Amino acid sequence: MTQIAHLHEALDGQRLWDDVQSLASIGALEPRGIRRLALDEADNRARLWLAEQGAALGCRVHYDALGNLFLRREGQDASLAPLLIGSHMDSQPRAGAHDGALGVVAGLSILRTLSERGIAHRRPLEVVAWTNEEGARFAPGASGSSWFAGQREYEDILAALDGDGVRFGDALQECLTLLEDKGLEYRPAPFEPHAFLELHIEQGPILEQLGKPVGIVSGIQGVNWYRIEVEGMANHAGTTPRQARRDAFDGAHELVTALKAATSGQDDDLRFTIGTFSLWPDAVNTIAQRATFTIDLRHPRQAVLDDLDARFHALARRQWSGCDAHLTVTSRVAPVAFPDSLLEVLRESAGSVCPEVPELVSGAFHDAIHLAHVCPTAMLFTPCRAGISHHPDEHIEREDAEVAVRALAEAASRLLA
Amino acid sequence: MTQIAHLHEALDGQRLWDDVQSLASIGALEPRGIRRLALDEADNRARLWLAEQGAALGCRVHYDALGNLFLRREGQDASLAPLLIGSHMDSQPRAGAHDGALGVVAGLSILRTLSERGIAHRRPLEVVAWTNEEGARFAPGASGSSWFAGQREYEDILAALDGDGVRFGDALQECLTLLEDKGLEYRPAPFEPHAFLELHIEQGPILEQLGKPVGIVSGIQGVNWYRIEVEGMANHAGTTPRQARRDAFDGAHELVTALKAATSGQDDDLRFTIGTFSLWPDAVNTIAQRATFTIDLRHPRQAVLDDLDARFHALARRQWSGCDAHLTVTSRVAPVAFPDSLLEVLRESAGSVCPEVPELVSGAFHDAIHLAHVCPTAMLFTPCRAGISHHPDEHIEREDAEVAVRALAEAASRLLA
Repeated sequence: MTQIAHLHEALDGQRLWDDVQSLASIGALEPRGIRRLALDEADNRARLWLAEQGAALGCRVHYDALGNLFLRREGQDASLAPLLIGSHMDSQPRAGAHDGALGVVAGLSILRTLSERGIAHRRPLEVVAWTNEEGARFAPGASGSSWFAGQREYEDILAALDGDGVRFGDALQECLTLLEDKGLEYRPAPFEPHAFLELHIEQGPILEQLGKPVGIVSGIQGVNWYRIEVEGMANHAGTTPRQARRDAFDGAHELVTALKAATSGQDDDLRFTIGTFSLWPDAVNTIAQRATFTIDLRHPRQAVLDDLDARFHALARRQWSGCDAHLTVTSRVAPVAFPDSLLEVLRESAGSVCPEVPELVSGAFHDAIHLAHVCPTAMLFTPCRAGISHHPDEHIEREDAEVAVRALAEAASRLLA
Repeated sequence: MTQIAHLHEALDGQRLWDDVQSLASIGALEPRGIRRLALDEADNRARLWLAEQGAALGCRVHYDALGNLFLRREGQDASLAPLLIGSHMDSQPRAGAHDGALGVVAGLSILRTLSERGIAHRRPLEVVAWTNEEGARFAPGASGSSWFAGQREYEDILAALDGDGVRFGDALQECLTLLEDKGLEYRPAPFEPHAFLELHIEQGPILEQLGKPVGIVSGIQGVNWYRIEVEGMANHAGTTPRQARRDAFDGAHELVTALKAATSGQDDDLRFTIGTFSLWPDAVNTIAQRATFTIDLRHPRQAVLDDLDARFHALARRQWSGCDAHLTVTSRVAPVAFPDSLLEVLRESAGSVCPEVPELVSGAFHDAIHLAHVCPTAMLFTPCRAGISHHPDEHIEREDAEVAVRALAEAASRLLA
């Protein structure tokens, strides 16, 4: 039996890349990219694929009440809480193959190494694939991890509807039935892991610019999502005199100008994005009755988010071009700073496979932001070309990914030993 | 035989209102409003209803190559060009009953009066219903009148597709076959009328505010339509540093601010409306790759439109938040000033049924804007409640409509005598 020390040296890089390709073939788009919307047919097939890999390695395969899937390898001391490693397998509608998937495959490759080399370890290991991280089909995202971490109510998650009016709860039930039919083990409730590690593509340009294959994530920006409706009065674009107008587009335009001004004094870490904007009735020659838009606001410090939140609410209480505005907070996730004890494990582990590993704050949401509420949590990033993700052009270098997975394996070996 | 002088006194107000109700029942919506999309089943039934009314009055009923329908009452001098009176019978998808229809029924009521009282007149009279004024099913609108006036090509009009992919030409052929089967007379080509008069609901708030049942329309605003695309780069809302962004929403927002500034020095007659605005891919946490919006720009003077057109083009050539903009002119209709000689007839006629008749510029498009290219053309407006149109809540007062139709009848009597 091989020792767990230097586990990373035993990891089969070719096998890792084969797993990456196998998972990427599920829901593959032509000529490249994938589409695995949460709980759709491809996403469920990905679960079955992962379950098969785990079963073949002698793992017990569990699923919980949210369809989160766990491959469990027992440790020598069954009384210990397991180390949890993983990410998600669902994707945006036209996405790359590695967002989320790489973190799951990385965990699988560690399971393979442990199993094939017959390496014993004290602490159990579970590799997890969380349900609906992306929120592309059912908003908001991170359903599986946020529920697992006690951050969101089960019934609220199940009530979400997709664009075709399908209820999350109904899609979930189909998935659970599928997993039950395959004879997998139902373990409905969350538990308290020893720690959670997530490897993910950076989805930003920093590591690529630094020329580094792996980075340590010291925390995750907090994120507030807002939906704003500006209510005017539909009317004929040609016949309605200017002073008689209550144009919802004009109101929204003025309000956006004010919202942008409110954020202008902030530091470079602030991210303010209006990614959706629509008008109703949306006709060239009709003054808009209603404008609806969203804001995605991020910052690593809660105080900055709170200050802007108060300003946004105050602005929305005013009238804009004679129109009323209504602001709704649709999601609020506090920033997370990962614990230094676990970061120190990652520094030592990553340092053993790569010199001068940089540390950065995650600008994107990850399942880890929720897990941080229930156990010590930390993340590794690996670069993606030009920071592009959520797009078929998303691309990673095999060599970078391998270094990052070796760093993760090394950290796992220290936490499992 | 009654004299044509003071024709309006002979007009039967109850019969006028009955005709309004009869036409409103074709394509009626519950609980109110109508749906008569151009060349659909209801729109064709409206043609047959009108043809029957005309035939019963002894009119010759013609239709032309665009499905425009004409009820012709002969004059004593057959060599004279006819006076043309009318409007359209098609509607928006959920519309009121009077937009267009009132102008056709008004012409019919004049035919009824002439016929039932046996009033002779020197000049022929034709009452017309133009095909597809609204452009709601097949864009752009005013198909029948623009073709009749030589403003648009027959083949271009026939090539338009509706939302279900049905070709205008195919829908038109069905309509023409229906009219042929009813034994109506095919008179394919346009001709040169003596003059064209159109009564229409105002679709704006001015007459109601003035408390006047009728107004003289001195001209129609010119209209330019633009579609603007701002092209940025889609990216993750959380991970993309501010200096690395090319956010198409930000670009569009800046450009809109500049476009609005360009219009700010203009007089109160200017109408600037952004009625459609969309983002792609339209996701909360994705920086927009593309923003697309339209401008509806109107003014009674061509010089003002030309000046703004040049400024809009110049602005679109610049970069906005690092994004390129592309401006396309999708429609351009020059303003029309109706000839004073015909306006004078309307002033005298309207003045004989109502004191102090106001004059106003039409903010909306009408068939008259095209007819003005081939013959002296003018319009009368009657108020609609709160200026609302293109909506089932569109409403007119019977008493107002009756005064306006009497003014039209009086003008007709002067032009026919």
